[in-house]
Amino acid sequence: MSERSGQNDELTLLGNKKTVYSFDYDPSVLESFQNMNTHRDYFVKFNFPEFTSLCPITSQPDFATLYISYVPDQKMVESKSLKLYLFSFRNHGDFHEDCMNKIADDLIKLMDPKYLEVWGKFTPRGGISIDPYVNYGKPGTKWEKVAFDRLAKHDLYPEKIDNR
Amino acid sequence: MSERSGQNDELTLLGNKKTVYSFDYDPSVLESFQNMNTHRDYFVKFNFPEFTSLCPITSQPDFATLYISYVPDQKMVESKSLKLYLFSFRNHGDFHEDCMNKIADDLIKLMDPKYLEVWGKFTPRGGISIDPYVNYGKPGTKWEKVAFDRLAKHDLYPEKIDNR
Amino acid sequence: MSERSGQNDELTLLGNKKTVYSFDYDPSVLESFQNMNTHRDYFVKFNFPEFTSLCPITSQPDFATLYISYVPDQKMVESKSLKLYLFSFRNHGDFHEDCMNKIADDLIKLMDPKYLEVWGKFTPRGGISIDPYVNYGKPGTKWEKVAFDRLAKHDLYPEKIDNR
Amino acid sequence: MSERSGQNDELTLLGNKKTVYSFDYDPSVLESFQNMNTHRDYFVKFNFPEFTSLCPITSQPDFATLYISYVPDQKMVESKSLKLYLFSFRNHGDFHEDCMNKIADDLIKLMDPKYLEVWGKFTPRGGISIDPYVNYGKPGTKWEKVAFDRLAKHDLYPEKIDNR
Amino acid sequence: MSERSGQNDELTLLGNKKTVYSFDYDPSVLESFQNMNTHRDYFVKFNFPEFTSLCPITSQPDFATLYISYVPDQKMVESKSLKLYLFSFRNHGDFHEDCMNKIADDLIKLMDPKYLEVWGKFTPRGGISIDPYVNYGKPGTKWEKVAFDRLAKHDLYPEKIDNR
Amino acid sequence: MSERSGQNDELTLLGNKKTVYSFDYDPSVLESFQNMNTHRDYFVKFNFPEFTSLCPITSQPDFATLYISYVPDQKMVESKSLKLYLFSFRNHGDFHEDCMNKIADDLIKLMDPKYLEVWGKFTPRGGISIDPYVNYGKPGTKWEKVAFDRLAKHDLYPEKIDNR
Amino acid sequence: MSERSGQNDELTLLGNKKTVYSFDYDPSVLESFQNMNTHRDYFVKFNFPEFTSLCPITSQPDFATLYISYVPDQKMVESKSLKLYLFSFRNHGDFHEDCMNKIADDLIKLMDPKYLEVWGKFTPRGGISIDPYVNYGKPGTKWEKVAFDRLAKHDLYPEKIDNR
Amino acid sequence: MSERSGQNDELTLLGNKKTVYSFDYDPSVLESFQNMNTHRDYFVKFNFPEFTSLCPITSQPDFATLYISYVPDQKMVESKSLKLYLFSFRNHGDFHEDCMNKIADDLIKLMDPKYLEVWGKFTPRGGISIDPYVNYGKPGTKWEKVAFDRLAKHDLYPEKIDNR
Amino acid sequence: MSERSGQNDELTLLGNKKTVYSFDYDPSVLESFQNMNTHRDYFVKFNFPEFTSLCPITSQPDFATLYISYVPDQKMVESKSLKLYLFSFRNHGDFHEDCMNKIADDLIKLMDPKYLEVWGKFTPRGGISIDPYVNYGKPGTKWEKVAFDRLAKHDLYPEKIDNR
Amino acid sequence: MSERSGQNDELTLLGNKKTVYSFDYDPSVLESFQNMNTHRDYFVKFNFPEFTSLCPITSQPDFATLYISYVPDQKMVESKSLKLYLFSFRNHGDFHEDCMNKIADDLIKLMDPKYLEVWGKFTPRGGISIDPYVNYGKPGTKWEKVAFDRLAKHDLYPEKIDNR
Ligand SMILES: [Ca+2]
Ligand SMILES: [Ca+2]
Ligand SMILES: [Ca+2]
Ligand SMILES: [Ca+2]
Ligand SMILES: [Ca+2]
Ligand SMILES: [Ca+2]
Ligand SMILES: [Ca+2]
Ligand SMILES: [Ca+2]
Ligand SMILES: [Ca+2]
Ligand SMILES: [Ca+2]
Ligand SMILES: [Ca+2]
Ligand SMILES: [Ca+2]
Ligand SMILES: [Ca+2]
Ligand SMILES: [Ca+2]
Ligand SMILES: [Ca+2]
Ligand SMILES: [Ca+2]
Repeated sequence: MSERSGQNDELTLLGNKKTVYSFDYDPSVLESFQNMNTHRDYFVKFNFPEFTSLCPITSQPDFATLYISYVPDQKMVESKSLKLYLFSFRNHGDFHEDCMNKIADDLIKLMDPKYLEVWGKFTPRGGISIDPYVNYGKPGTKWEKVAFDRLAKHDLYPEKIDNR
Repeated sequence: MSERSGQNDELTLLGNKKTVYSFDYDPSVLESFQNMNTHRDYFVKFNFPEFTSLCPITSQPDFATLYISYVPDQKMVESKSLKLYLFSFRNHGDFHEDCMNKIADDLIKLMDPKYLEVWGKFTPRGGISIDPYVNYGKPGTKWEKVAFDRLAKHDLYPEKIDNR
Repeated sequence: MSERSGQNDELTLLGNKKTVYSFDYDPSVLESFQNMNTHRDYFVKFNFPEFTSLCPITSQPDFATLYISYVPDQKMVESKSLKLYLFSFRNHGDFHEDCMNKIADDLIKLMDPKYLEVWGKFTPRGGISIDPYVNYGKPGTKWEKVAFDRLAKHDLYPEKIDNR
Repeated sequence: MSERSGQNDELTLLGNKKTVYSFDYDPSVLESFQNMNTHRDYFVKFNFPEFTSLCPITSQPDFATLYISYVPDQKMVESKSLKLYLFSFRNHGDFHEDCMNKIADDLIKLMDPKYLEVWGKFTPRGGISIDPYVNYGKPGTKWEKVAFDRLAKHDLYPEKIDNR
Repeated sequence: MSERSGQNDELTLLGNKKTVYSFDYDPSVLESFQNMNTHRDYFVKFNFPEFTSLCPITSQPDFATLYISYVPDQKMVESKSLKLYLFSFRNHGDFHEDCMNKIADDLIKLMDPKYLEVWGKFTPRGGISIDPYVNYGKPGTKWEKVAFDRLAKHDLYPEKIDNR
Repeated sequence: MSERSGQNDELTLLGNKKTVYSFDYDPSVLESFQNMNTHRDYFVKFNFPEFTSLCPITSQPDFATLYISYVPDQKMVESKSLKLYLFSFRNHGDFHEDCMNKIADDLIKLMDPKYLEVWGKFTPRGGISIDPYVNYGKPGTKWEKVAFDRLAKHDLYPEKIDNR
Repeated sequence: MSERSGQNDELTLLGNKKTVYSFDYDPSVLESFQNMNTHRDYFVKFNFPEFTSLCPITSQPDFATLYISYVPDQKMVESKSLKLYLFSFRNHGDFHEDCMNKIADDLIKLMDPKYLEVWGKFTPRGGISIDPYVNYGKPGTKWEKVAFDRLAKHDLYPEKIDNR
Repeated sequence: MSERSGQNDELTLLGNKKTVYSFDYDPSVLESFQNMNTHRDYFVKFNFPEFTSLCPITSQPDFATLYISYVPDQKMVESKSLKLYLFSFRNHGDFHEDCMNKIADDLIKLMDPKYLEVWGKFTPRGGISIDPYVNYGKPGTKWEKVAFDRLAKHDLYPEKIDNR
Repeated sequence: MSERSGQNDELTLLGNKKTVYSFDYDPSVLESFQNMNTHRDYFVKFNFPEFTSLCPITSQPDFATLYISYVPDQKMVESKSLKLYLFSFRNHGDFHEDCMNKIADDLIKLMDPKYLEVWGKFTPRGGISIDPYVNYGKPGTKWEKVAFDRLAKHDLYPEKIDNR
Repeated sequence: MSERSGQNDELTLLGNKKTVYSFDYDPSVLESFQNMNTHRDYFVKFNFPEFTSLCPITSQPDFATLYISYVPDQKMVESKSLKLYLFSFRNHGDFHEDCMNKIADDLIKLMDPKYLEVWGKFTPRGGISIDPYVNYGKPGTKWEKVAFDRLAKHDLYPEKIDNR
């Protein structure tokens, strides 16, 4: 059916028997597969409104919507493994900014992408909410400059927030 | 009536007797016609919220809204044939990223456009959704740089997603 | 300051030293306080977009926004204790419908209210989402009929859902 | 100009020289004037998104949008005096439910209206928000039943809340 | 063309030569025409977001969106004359509630309708906005009860207001 | 395939060779077919944002979105024929209220439905817009009362209009 | 974990090994399970924006969002089996109204519920869209009247449609 | 009153006696007037949601919202004449792309502007909609580059379309 | 209290006794005060949805929302005086484009700002609406180029308009 | 748990015993902590819809939503201390522009960030609202140019404001 079917051995998660959910930070669940469209650069974005972790000081649950975008080089991240990885923060305590940086680091390590960005939009605590934005361009390529340009233009037109 | 009426022979689909729907990936249904406004460069965008294909591993149906934009050179894609082409993915199994790349490849082959982009926004599976974005500028023209610039600025302000 | 300050002994959670978060279903964290406005019937609604529990079969995390409304009799639920109670479903496995019924049962037991309703709006799994709605009117009072009337008129104009 | 101008002596606030703002709960700033349209019953609604008070336990500021509606009998509340009254909660500590009941009590005392309702929609604390709704119909009139009917139908279709 | 063309003599405003705008309250500009569909009762609603008048005390301009609905008996109000009538409040000083009652009175006098309602939603002054709602059912008909029922159910689900 | 296929002879428009568009009011294009689900009463609604006619006085084009709902008895209106019928107002001059009444009359004549309603929401002229609403319940049935009840409750919560 | 776990034998689909997707109308995939909360009546709503079927005349794909609500008696429909059932219309040709009636019939047969409703909102063809609404109350119970009352009040305030 | 009043002879349409509507493509109705603010460059945008023409093959009516922006040089287009010109497409058959190019050509010829753009957003046919975008900068001026830059950045963030 | 209090002599309007409203174009009501933050460049934006003037030909009232932004040099415009100035167009006849240019000219003369822009978004007449946009950068400074760049990028993503 | 736990001594506010709220401008409550991700530049944004201060002339309360974004160097601002700092404006009188500049100055002094911006969007007074925007890039670094570029591109697409 799909031209990618020769690659199915790599994909252990999608359609497999029994998914096991880890709720302790676990980057080892991440899986990659081969980019089949290396003849061009393109973007893939993941929308994930179900991110939750714990405050490392108070253990109160935190909630966020994550937007993760990247330009693949040779490898791509498998979406179900990404979901499991993000679910693994569930009972993990960490600051908002550190979570976003850690996710970026783990995905860079997994895929060695040309470009990557991670944007977390958290729900408020005490009337204030925090939205960290982290990005990366492969050093020595034109994507390094793209990363800086995107950072320099980040969120020029912020969405309206009223905590309701 | 229209100045384009001398060209009607080319347009076999619009207004014809009996449309046949293929639900197996079929790029041969694509039809082009002559660009009547070659004195300027301009954009044409198609909005298509009725894209559906199958997951190549599980056969579960996938759904997406597609945004396809291009700057024509000599040829343009006829909209009804484009619709039939997109409907032909209905019972075809393929990954999201591969579908978008394939659509771009087929339209480039059909029209040889100056510029083209294909953006798919899929509905979520397991809490996560995927939005591939693919673009192209004709090599050796200024549109090659436009394509890179648009890729480098892609989706700086992502829409809000909450899976509801 | 507040006329309710004589009642502060009851309120052990609000403003207290160190909140402990339980992530195992724990109705014992619920606390009530005295309704100071018994000269009239009135509604109190809680909005809680941070509900999460586990699927009892697969252990996959589920997410919902909860709307809880009630008309107090003598007792009211303290909001911080309600938050802790709802957070206690975090690592608890239960079906959507059972969670909503259980929350209603626990709050009825705690407060013995005149009227109560619990509405959960879950995020989709596999393209489909589930919204259970449970309500209650104190038997033998006019609120019993109100409960049936509200059930009979429930959600006549459902919100638009497109899973994005 | 206006047919109401003979009544201007009553209206000491609107257009007066120097407004004094009290930030301590002060129902004495409320002023009423004569209803000029007693030949029919009608509604007047006030929208007030600038309500703020203090938590009586922690002194943390609370914020709400208030919707106040009434059907006048002989007297009406002057809008600028209502604003000053609502601003007078600024440094006053009280629970959400008690604030709404107190506002209703004060306006009933001032105007002796046929019908009145007060709805407060507060911003969240710790992920949960509270919306008290209080209403009143003059005892012994048909508005007593209207008040119960409106309470029984209150907020059947709650607005979507996501704390952002 | 239209079946109503025999009635055109009545309609002096629509399509006429030269419209004269009065900016002093002037109910004489109102024109009615014959209801051609007396075989059934039906609603006609006018939306008018361009209402402006003056504060009778301070002369500051006030602004509102008006929603006017009615069920005609024999006569209907011509829409261009209604517009001119509403524009005639431009330099007229009057309180919000009095404006809405006056508009209702004038339209009842003009048309003798079965049912009529006028809802004004004003922009805020000093953080507070006022929305009067006035209605009427012809005495001695079933529309008298309809008017009371609509008043009793008025604005149960108020729109969200944040003054932005 | 469909259980309704024995009925296809009735349906001359859907899927037929060559659609002819009339732009002169033409109720003869309306076609009905047999209701296959007479074991229950149910609603069918048509949304039609492409209605246009001419002002009978000035010939200026008018535009509206139409919402047509009905409960069928034995007959149903075929949607493509309804579209052609609505398009036939294109060069026809008539007042807004008369158009809506005429459409209701024609559909009642075609289908003899249990219940029917037609709501037109027109774009503004000179700052004011008109929304007629017409309904019908079959005399002597319970739907006659339903029609009156729906009329009596019509548009209690009008949409926000700002002409932009 | 869950109190419902003794019932897991019934639930063959959720969390099982290998889901098989049928794309031919197949009510046999529907599965029910026992209602664990028979001590009260409550609503369960399913949102399903991924419904697609074929036009029985032209075979063109149709798309709709479905809203299915019910009040269970002894049995409930398992959500994954409902999803598979709805997916089984994928290559099935049927009219919009017939699909909605068939879904209602199949779910009534499966669950014998106290109350059920099915609302389909289809995308437009040729500028017009169709939204059938079907409901049911168990004969001889109070839910029979509820069904009629909900039908009589159906969609009094239709959503705005502009086909974009 | 206005400083532009010496120019009124040019403006034959605004406020004149009797407007004649042509429904056959007629660029001769376009009128220009003198730009009174030549000391600076500035933009003027027209919003026109009432564009309709005919499909040149099937004669089915097409509908679009048009956004027309320009930077004037010496001449400006009079808005009422522009409306009449756009209405003149009503019974004219032409493809979407050709309509937009023709409008641009006619306005360039009329005004010889520094910059001009025309964006049409059409309603869908068969599930797909088309949005052509055409622009122009006066050759040999800096606006030629502006036109290319705006084309190169066109619609980077497309609006969400769901055909409802 | 404020560090700006030594400057209060300049501010004759804010908090003063009796505001006088002029409804004839009157730039003399504009007042400026000293910029206290000259150590950096920054933007100030005014939102004014209550602009109204008269058509210079027909005297029909026009309505607009104005957005005025500027980067101050030494002087700033006092907001209450700006409001009075904008209200002074109330009975003044002028074309949309001329109003916006005049406002820009008057504010440039008052403040001699580094940068200024004025955007008016008018309500439709006859189905078409006009939005002029005017800007300015101080000649000989880098703001001259900023003004051109902002003009060249103006409104690339126009808001959706449907005249409702 | 968190890798940042060695740093907890610095964080005296988060999770501490008893928060004290100051309502007099008090920059001393601001606390910083160490940036743990100095291997890359990234953005952190705070959304704060609960800002309120007093007008320095009239003492009327002002309300705003604040958006504060920065790129950290070595230090970051602790979010609870930022909240307390912003709450400390509650009974402080200052002009809108001065508040925003003061907040920027205090945060620059606290953190010495690479980049910082503060955007306040205030509610209207008398029909007009004010939105100051202040930014900063560390002198002598590339962020100085970023600050100017962001200022030059500030708010090119202002949100729609209608004061409701
Ligand atoms: Ca919000
Ligand atoms: Ca959403
Ligand atoms: Ca899913
Ligand atoms: Ca949605
Ligand atoms: Ca909070
Ligand atoms: Ca909190
Ligand atoms: Ca929200
Ligand atoms: Ca105000
Ligand atoms: Ca608002
Ligand atoms: Ca108009
Ligand atoms: Ca609008
Ligand atoms: Ca729409
Ligand atoms: Ca279509
Ligand atoms: Ca839409
Ligand atoms: Ca609109
Ligand atoms: Ca608004």
